[in-house]
Amino acid sequence: MKIGVIGCGYWGPNLIRNFAALDDVEVVAVADVRKERLDFIARLYPSIQTLTTEANDILRSPEIDAVVISTPVSSHFPLGKEALANGKHLFMEKPFTATVEESETLIELAEKKNLRIMVDHTFIYTGAVQTIKRIIDEGQLGELYYFDSVRVNLGLFQHDVNVIWDLAPHDVSIMEYLLEQPPRAISATGVAHFDTNIENIAYISTYYDNNLLGHIHVNWLAPVKVRKTLICGSKKMIVYDDTEPSEKVKIYDRGVEMIKDKDQIYEMLVQYRTGDMLAPQINLTEALKNISQEFYDAVSESRAPLTDGVAGLRVVRILEAANQSIRNGGKVVELKS
Amino acid sequence: MKIGVIGCGYWGPNLIRNFAALDDVEVVAVADVRKERLDFIARLYPSIQTLTTEANDILRSPEIDAVVISTPVSSHFPLGKEALANGKHLFMEKPFTATVEESETLIELAEKKNLRIMVDHTFIYTGAVQTIKRIIDEGQLGELYYFDSVRVNLGLFQHDVNVIWDLAPHDVSIMEYLLEQPPRAISATGVAHFDTNIENIAYISTYYDNNLLGHIHVNWLAPVKVRKTLICGSKKMIVYDDTEPSEKVKIYDRGVEMIKDKDQIYEMLVQYRTGDMLAPQINLTEALKNISQEFYDAVSESRAPLTDGVAGLRVVRILEAANQSIRNGGKVVELKS
Amino acid sequence: MKIGVIGCGYWGPNLIRNFAALDDVEVVAVADVRKERLDFIARLYPSIQTLTTEANDILRSPEIDAVVISTPVSSHFPLGKEALANGKHLFMEKPFTATVEESETLIELAEKKNLRIMVDHTFIYTGAVQTIKRIIDEGQLGELYYFDSVRVNLGLFQHDVNVIWDLAPHDVSIMEYLLEQPPRAISATGVAHFDTNIENIAYISTYYDNNLLGHIHVNWLAPVKVRKTLICGSKKMIVYDDTEPSEKVKIYDRGVEMIKDKDQIYEMLVQYRTGDMLAPQINLTEALKNISQEFYDAVSESRAPLTDGVAGLRVVRILEAANQSIRNGGKVVELKS
Amino acid sequence: MKIGVIGCGYWGPNLIRNFAALDDVEVVAVADVRKERLDFIARLYPSIQTLTTEANDILRSPEIDAVVISTPVSSHFPLGKEALANGKHLFMEKPFTATVEESETLIELAEKKNLRIMVDHTFIYTGAVQTIKRIIDEGQLGELYYFDSVRVNLGLFQHDVNVIWDLAPHDVSIMEYLLEQPPRAISATGVAHFDTNIENIAYISTYYDNNLLGHIHVNWLAPVKVRKTLICGSKKMIVYDDTEPSEKVKIYDRGVEMIKDKDQIYEMLVQYRTGDMLAPQINLTEALKNISQEFYDAVSESRAPLTDGVAGLRVVRILEAANQSIRNGGKVVELKS
Repeated sequence: MKIGVIGCGYWGPNLIRNFAALDDVEVVAVADVRKERLDFIARLYPSIQTLTTEANDILRSPEIDAVVISTPVSSHFPLGKEALANGKHLFMEKPFTATVEESETLIELAEKKNLRIMVDHTFIYTGAVQTIKRIIDEGQLGELYYFDSVRVNLGLFQHDVNVIWDLAPHDVSIMEYLLEQPPRAISATGVAHFDTNIENIAYISTYYDNNLLGHIHVNWLAPVKVRKTLICGSKKMIVYDDTEPSEKVKIYDRGVEMIKDKDQIYEMLVQYRTGDMLAPQINLTEALKNISQEFYDAVSESRAPLTDGVAGLRVVRILEAANQSIRNGGKVVELKS
Repeated sequence: MKIGVIGCGYWGPNLIRNFAALDDVEVVAVADVRKERLDFIARLYPSIQTLTTEANDILRSPEIDAVVISTPVSSHFPLGKEALANGKHLFMEKPFTATVEESETLIELAEKKNLRIMVDHTFIYTGAVQTIKRIIDEGQLGELYYFDSVRVNLGLFQHDVNVIWDLAPHDVSIMEYLLEQPPRAISATGVAHFDTNIENIAYISTYYDNNLLGHIHVNWLAPVKVRKTLICGSKKMIVYDDTEPSEKVKIYDRGVEMIKDKDQIYEMLVQYRTGDMLAPQINLTEALKNISQEFYDAVSESRAPLTDGVAGLRVVRILEAANQSIRNGGKVVELKS
Repeated sequence: MKIGVIGCGYWGPNLIRNFAALDDVEVVAVADVRKERLDFIARLYPSIQTLTTEANDILRSPEIDAVVISTPVSSHFPLGKEALANGKHLFMEKPFTATVEESETLIELAEKKNLRIMVDHTFIYTGAVQTIKRIIDEGQLGELYYFDSVRVNLGLFQHDVNVIWDLAPHDVSIMEYLLEQPPRAISATGVAHFDTNIENIAYISTYYDNNLLGHIHVNWLAPVKVRKTLICGSKKMIVYDDTEPSEKVKIYDRGVEMIKDKDQIYEMLVQYRTGDMLAPQINLTEALKNISQEFYDAVSESRAPLTDGVAGLRVVRILEAANQSIRNGGKVVELKS
Repeated sequence: MKIGVIGCGYWGPNLIRNFAALDDVEVVAVADVRKERLDFIARLYPSIQTLTTEANDILRSPEIDAVVISTPVSSHFPLGKEALANGKHLFMEKPFTATVEESETLIELAEKKNLRIMVDHTFIYTGAVQTIKRIIDEGQLGELYYFDSVRVNLGLFQHDVNVIWDLAPHDVSIMEYLLEQPPRAISATGVAHFDTNIENIAYISTYYDNNLLGHIHVNWLAPVKVRKTLICGSKKMIVYDDTEPSEKVKIYDRGVEMIKDKDQIYEMLVQYRTGDMLAPQINLTEALKNISQEFYDAVSESRAPLTDGVAGLRVVRILEAANQSIRNGGKVVELKS
């Protein structure tokens, strides 16, 4: 499989490194509008033949089988459409596209052309999320009650998209993957500081049937880094802390007994835990290694990858609704099922 | 000052202990509907003369100057009204009352009778919150950007009020005290599990002018205890973690530079902190000691205490609006200024 | 059982509270040379009949069955001897006595008189240590490799004993209880600052057969509180952190594979954990409740309590040897078996 | 400056990367006995002309100005001697040599030939250690009381040197750099498990004048990673935790008041901290960047580098004495001043 990569900013070199490391895959061309980024790649990978400032050199090259797009989200749709139109499989940086409509158009086009779309929802391919998924699938958590995720730090303020489009794709993709159902409604709150209209802090609530609730806090303006997700069920609860070096996933064997007598509260406070906590061993292999392999396998086997265009679309639908809610002062947005 | 205490559940004995320790204050009577609670108090404080199952023995006693009410919130209003009507100063457990209207009625009555009302917003009297208040008042944080508070653990499920009325009074009272302005609107999300209609997890957003945002997460159903508040301004940011034994307040000397070039992100991630962090020494004296002293002083000096009825009303107004939003599926509730 | 308590400093009231709470036990007399401490006890326990500044009023009282001694260690021996001589069972604060010889004399006397001695090695009665004991007894750790304990904070500088006699009895008693074998040799290092000859920081090494090693770091002069013990075996390893509110004991399912090729180090560093970590539920009942019950049971059943005089002697033997090593510049002290 | 690198195991490629990144420095040759390591380097740095399995090709090459040696410690001396004998400046991986005598011989030879020796005590060049050094030099800590360092994790078991020679060079070099005085005596304890005679856990005590004490715990067999150093003085205390992502250095503004009355202990426990804690901003630039620059500068300016041969010798002297103490069952080893 011969691959062309469009976009060599922060993340592009990581993608190149991982695809280049696969057997049977060759990165043959890289495009970026910035000449100095191409020079940087040339030094790292002297074997890459084509380094160009013209995306079309890749999109229209007859020798290229698949295109990896790692550019600002506003260009995802035009570049992705051109790639598919030229018969290339598509590996798209997250979020998939800037609108639901764009996602739907690309999915439709790929189907028509029998091509693969894969969206780089990196966290799905980590050992931590795979472990949590297994635990949920085994029914260990019981009935799911809520999903609460916090992703904050003093981050880079983007100039093109707000904090929801920048950070929330991670949490939303994990939430979608684990809960396995679309929310029926969404509301969101967000504020832009610094005289921009780009929100740098936002809260998203997602409403599901059966009293299941999702909530995501994303924030570019916090003094400490937090990457913490609570997933709570009727039988067990999980804390997933991605900043922990090894014990990223902790499973608490706890339930709730409904205590009617208020005077028993003191005993409750003292006898705080009612079961063991287990931190299972997590496979710490780099997620990007898994993701590049999955793309190659999906293309080779002519099957949908784990995070295909439809998975990407589900994420974009939530992001779009969250933004819509913010634009309407926090109004609840119903989603069609 | 002679005090009568109504309600001897979990918190009542703490109140009795602190009021009894004051010079010039005497706890002369205690009421509780549960005989065994009175026996418990009798053993601890053999000197208390009146132990009764009838609140009216206290409310109508001519020798009593002030009444401390620590009962379920639904009884706050009738008991408080009777106390004021009988010329007693009033120390009320939080939240002040079950509705805004009740709060307003009690405040009006106290004014008419020239009596003091104090609400037990305990955290306001901690060294941690007093330190944060001083830092904000000194202008160290610059323009305030947001207040984000999380108060979760595997807590006692109340059977009469939801998690908002149980836990959020703490966060709301701190937020009110520090931000010094009422929100112009509120929205909230909450879910009840376990076949009750009492929410055990809730999120509250409070909207202020000037892009200031408040957000509170309260939760009875979490595997770990979290008591963490972020208060962020244009110059500095504070992390207040009440579970820390001594370094409860951390002040981060950080600002944000708007970086336009996306390629600089890597440098940002490595050079993560851009200033010192200071954890000031916190006065760890028990807050209840301060609060009982403040009540005595306010009564003696015929002045409003720090957390008076109006402060209690401001909290109830936010709780009421939050509940209203939840009942309306997350709809934004505008507050009259 | 009628109990007299001698010594009402910091710890004495806790002992009184726990013994007073037992059925069939009555605290009938308390002695302290400080009149104000007796007044303090009188207010808390108006039912205690005898409050005296003369220890002999207790030691020679015909109605008293057992004596609890919570005085400075230098007085443990004369008071304990007098108590036994007068036919009283003995509950002694840790450390048992100031010398090995004193311990041996008291044990011999108690045997002759058929009386019980119990030493207040409190930590042995915590849920955490009991859990660790069970895990070791089940063989989960495999062959034991080392015991490493750190107990430091900005503590109170004693004026009569050094940090070894003040803090190390906790670690030594836990080590003795868990390893179930006496060390064959001991060395220790310690330094006294502040122009005293009382060491405020010390390190103790205990040597056992089979390459088992013990090490204890006690320190009154540290900026942060640490209470952390590592217990490592051939199959599993335990971290016991007493400052953790609930997850005090963590069991790591780890082993070591001998890797010969130095170039594999990178893989090792990345794949850091090789098994699960389990934090078992710990019984958080107050240890003093268990310890007072154990004393009563041992006396009633005419059997040795879990931490009897011999257990107390074993601890004193190690403390004495550690001090001897420090006095000799760190020289290794052999212990007779 | 033309550099040849001997030894391409785990650390070698990092050295090559940092030296190659310097202006005016060129890595022209790399030697390793393992052919596959040379192939690995060839792919990363196609511009390096000489890749050889013969160290002598570098040591005797007339075009090479300086030799970087990153091989097992047993070969440091013969390789270093040959390099100096051939007029090359020497950059030696830590520890400098396997014995004090070897270090002294190399230093003497370098002086005779007017060549530079630099030892790779990497931590000295970190922002954290530089910050601590500045704080001590400013007198902020007052009189120094102790240095306590713990460096443990489930590490790679070396087959040629014990844990002291593998891990302790880091702690010893930091201790030497900060305390600025040689210990007058040393004792050490260590144990070898797994049927080897290579200690995998060890404790080193270093004795200084004026009641200053040093202590180091190094351990390949621990379930958790710890990199924590306490440095305590009469005025302030420092905690240096290298596993913290950003707040690596914390300065506690604490002193000790000698409290005579034992009854005041309770107040002490509650009023735990008596001053602020400051975590100064740390320069997080990679230490290796600083170290390679320092070597170049020292050679260019014909001056001793910060960590010269004499600094390396001081570390080796302590390691050698620690090993000697272990071989003699923990006996205290006096060091000549």
